[in-house]
Amino acid sequence: MTIQMFEKPLGMRDDFPFIAKKKAELRSNGTAIIQQAGYDLLQTPTLEYYETVGKISAIADNALFKLLDSQGETLVLRPDMTSPIARVAASKLLKEKMPVRLGYYSNVFRAQKREGGRPAEFEQMGVELIGDDSLYADAEVIILAWNVLKNLDIKSSRFVIGHTQLLQLILEDFGLDQEQIEKVHSAFVSKNSVGFESLAKQLPIEPSRLESFVGLMSTSTVEEWQQWIDPANTKQTSLFEGMKKLKTILERSGLADAVTYDLSFNSHMTYYTGLVFEVYGAGSGFPLGNGGRYDGLMKQFGLQVGATGFGLRVDRLLEIISADAEQENHTLILFDEPNEERAFDKAQKLRGEGVRVTLQFAPAVLAIDEFSALFSDVLRMEGAN
Amino acid sequence: MTIQMFEKPLGMRDDFPFIAKKKAELRSNGTAIIQQAGYDLLQTPTLEYYETVGKISAIADNALFKLLDSQGETLVLRPDMTSPIARVAASKLLKEKMPVRLGYYSNVFRAQKREGGRPAEFEQMGVELIGDDSLYADAEVIILAWNVLKNLDIKSSRFVIGHTQLLQLILEDFGLDQEQIEKVHSAFVSKNSVGFESLAKQLPIEPSRLESFVGLMSTSTVEEWQQWIDPANTKQTSLFEGMKKLKTILERSGLADAVTYDLSFNSHMTYYTGLVFEVYGAGSGFPLGNGGRYDGLMKQFGLQVGATGFGLRVDRLLEIISADAEQENHTLILFDEPNEERAFDKAQKLRGEGVRVTLQFAPAVLAIDEFSALFSDVLRMEGAN
Repeated sequence: MTIQMFEKPLGMRDDFPFIAKKKAELRSNGTAIIQQAGYDLLQTPTLEYYETVGKISAIADNALFKLLDSQGETLVLRPDMTSPIARVAASKLLKEKMPVRLGYYSNVFRAQKREGGRPAEFEQMGVELIGDDSLYADAEVIILAWNVLKNLDIKSSRFVIGHTQLLQLILEDFGLDQEQIEKVHSAFVSKNSVGFESLAKQLPIEPSRLESFVGLMSTSTVEEWQQWIDPANTKQTSLFEGMKKLKTILERSGLADAVTYDLSFNSHMTYYTGLVFEVYGAGSGFPLGNGGRYDGLMKQFGLQVGATGFGLRVDRLLEIISADAEQENHTLILFDEPNEERAFDKAQKLRGEGVRVTLQFAPAVLAIDEFSALFSDVLRMEGAN
Repeated sequence: MTIQMFEKPLGMRDDFPFIAKKKAELRSNGTAIIQQAGYDLLQTPTLEYYETVGKISAIADNALFKLLDSQGETLVLRPDMTSPIARVAASKLLKEKMPVRLGYYSNVFRAQKREGGRPAEFEQMGVELIGDDSLYADAEVIILAWNVLKNLDIKSSRFVIGHTQLLQLILEDFGLDQEQIEKVHSAFVSKNSVGFESLAKQLPIEPSRLESFVGLMSTSTVEEWQQWIDPANTKQTSLFEGMKKLKTILERSGLADAVTYDLSFNSHMTYYTGLVFEVYGAGSGFPLGNGGRYDGLMKQFGLQVGATGFGLRVDRLLEIISADAEQENHTLILFDEPNEERAFDKAQKLRGEGVRVTLQFAPAVLAIDEFSALFSDVLRMEGAN
């Protein structure tokens, strides 16, 4: 393969000025809301050891960008932000400061096998709330994600909420072993209801409970979940009571119409251990982000505390944020040598008044008309005037 | 080597909240000034082909982070921003739109051989002005760098300005060949005046001109440069007249006391072809940034146009920006279950008024006193009040 001078690696993109400017606004508005809710911003390095963050992250090994450092150790370009933040929280922040609230806006990397339009580098904005295993923490991150989206002018965002642990307990109640449960998870993730029904018939489920089992795939309210809760199972009833409480809090915060409770909803991110959710918005078929509880991940860093958080995909947010392509005010001052000092003074004056000004020596411009057309105002300061 | 769970690769750093917040402010203020001067922000990918950007960059090959992609091509983590921006300007932007003004705030990568405190990843903020070979373009980027620093409250920044091409012509006038000129450059870069004097004696320089030659290393005004200018050499006189004009413009813009004109100043960045400069600030022995003209680099992308720019090192800027460690206003609301709704409402009200509020379920906090001490105000909403 011969690489042309202007080519970029697979899945790599340039952000041209219009997008770069939109992103800067999104970053600034989003991180302001996150900080106002008490989260501190953190920035971790682009490269991490494969042995630490690389292996723990939930991203498939073949999607990691790997390289060797000068000591022969394998490094990875960070594939997500949750694992690096867990590393920092476990290593540096004192337990007395728990719970810690950390926010980020960072790029992450996923190696692509072929050019299919999927980015190999994209940005995420999110939070991690570490050291609080109450359901208030779960409610907090969902409400915060919703507030961030609202502040970015993303109307009608929708949350799909599930519960990894409760689903596990219910599937065990149907007499399934872990291997069978994994198959059910796969059917749920692919949202293939026909496939799920035929899978159900192959599983060792009592015929009298088959209809109930198939119903697992089509819930949308917490109340519907109740039919699978065993009143004698205190773990199940306590998790279910928590879901009802969560619903109350979310409704009170204005999310009543924004949430679907789908018991079959499951994340492909393997580190989630409790409540999980995905966010959708009108104008995009892909999730805008996801989140949930990942108490297990902290254990890998030797910390026995609860943790929850969310991450939003900046590229998908940008796709659905209304593109106001209005031309901004931008003044061009064209000058020649005799008028040079006057032009400098004029530019300084206008900039002092807040105007965006490009100051350009006219003889250096090849195509004056085309160049001038890029500006909302043009001041020519040329000749003996 | 056994990697501990909390370790980071050589030269990689976490930015803790205080630094991350300072950086966010610096980024926002600096890019605002850059945009107001007519520059558009651009963001290029972290990974580039070694064959394109990697080879063209002025960074030593052994300081590049290299990896293979799924096609077996060698990629690099971008070592600077000038080469990627040159790639974009040459490939995508139309010649009719020249001159183009592009700005950036980006991280760049330099592999380190050992832990010596030098970062392997750091951020740069800068601009490239492409398609204008007038001295007004050179003046513009110097004044812009100065304005950015002023806006970041960096007092007493100093510019050291040299001229690669003029120095070359003068050294040729002393009868030196290119190999000898390279030796002189090395002595200049290391700023070793004793070494330079003994080198001078070994070079084939007329004894009557030896004193004049040694004087090359100790200039600080444009006027001093004149003694080496051959009035019969139109190239030399024209470049020298340009330097005098530049001086006039810089003085008029308030930089009279901020500039040293050092004819021996030379950049280690090999792509510079004309005016070059470095920026220093009180409080740091390292340059805060550097810049200059690099018309040659654009030729590698098939474009015969002038280009100039600067880049500032964000880590060094942060070192000398006064650290105002004043505690910011940050309210903590601690609540228990009976007061949960009241606490939510209170948080929403305060945030609506612009207050930064952390809302925390009290029973989830292990050490209430230590946690509370992190905040400027604490509201306890607990019990039956």
